Amino acid sequence: MSWLQAPFSVIRPAHDADDDAIWAILEPVFREGETYCVARDISRDAALEYWTGGSHEVFLAEKNGICQGSYFICPNQEGGGSHVCNCGFVTAAAARGKGVARAMLGHAMTTARNSGYRAMQFNFVVSTNTRAIAIWQGQGFATVGRLAGAFNSPRHGFVDAFIMYRTL
Amino acid sequence: MSWLQAPFSVIRPAHDADDDAIWAILEPVFREGETYCVARDISRDAALEYWTGGSHEVFLAEKNGICQGSYFICPNQEGGGSHVCNCGFVTAAAARGKGVARAMLGHAMTTARNSGYRAMQFNFVVSTNTRAIAIWQGQGFATVGRLAGAFNSPRHGFVDAFIMYRTL
Repeated sequence: MSWLQAPFSVIRPAHDADDDAIWAILEPVFREGETYCVARDISRDAALEYWTGGSHEVFLAEKNGICQGSYFICPNQEGGGSHVCNCGFVTAAAARGKGVARAMLGHAMTTARNSGYRAMQFNFVVSTNTRAIAIWQGQGFATVGRLAGAFNSPRHGFVDAFIMYRTL
Repeated sequence: MSWLQAPFSVIRPAHDADDDAIWAILEPVFREGETYCVARDISRDAALEYWTGGSHEVFLAEKNGICQGSYFICPNQEGGGSHVCNCGFVTAAAARGKGVARAMLGHAMTTARNSGYRAMQFNFVVSTNTRAIAIWQGQGFATVGRLAGAFNSPRHGFVDAFIMYRTL
């Protein structure tokens, strides 16, 4: 089953057969090391485990069969914190600036509400990732926390990270 | 090797042989479900994996061979976030109010500095856990974030959780 999310893109659940497409998007982002807290030399297998493993539900944004982006959704905590979800988003370099991340976020919020989550939390938004922050803010996310110097950016050195949150 | 931390307590690295002692402290805390984001019916094995697994370094506070508390320390994130550590602390019911948590926190901050960490972050301090919050604040931790309604307390319903942070 798939959902028509926006004119440019279909967002659908990801399958094992999508691993190559997802890795092709993740690899340059992880190698650059500016937005996600993973080792820059992470292996393909470890990266796919990071993105699709555990309790992650994974989706893919496609246009004409080309993967434009992916996101995962999972509980941010277990037990008494399991009504708040966490998501990760990644957009293919060639598809940036076309609304793919915003469409995926809209899809994720619908998925989250349908799953019974009451809020969505991003635990670590690097403060230099201004494009993502603008998108999250535009969709109602508030910066509820600041972690001083919590990210060591290859390009900028130690920079702050934000916790962003919204009820659903 | 062990460290004499305070008159009442020795804090030392934990070993596999300490699993029973650690579980004896964790079980009532996890079953009560008021402070940690774990399922209240978590199994012994899953609880010990939660406490001692992955990259956790685990310590034990003892008095006369009786385990009074335990803490773990680990990187809070990988990659660009690995210079910030995370810790979890638990005190035996019978040992509360005797400074065990404060002694363990002091030990943890020393361990963290010796390991090269630049900051310590607590990701999810339940707002009703006022005893812990007072101890963390007393040791220089700032509340840098508030997560509205992020914890479903068995006793209080939906309550806020805090992110607490300090540089080392």
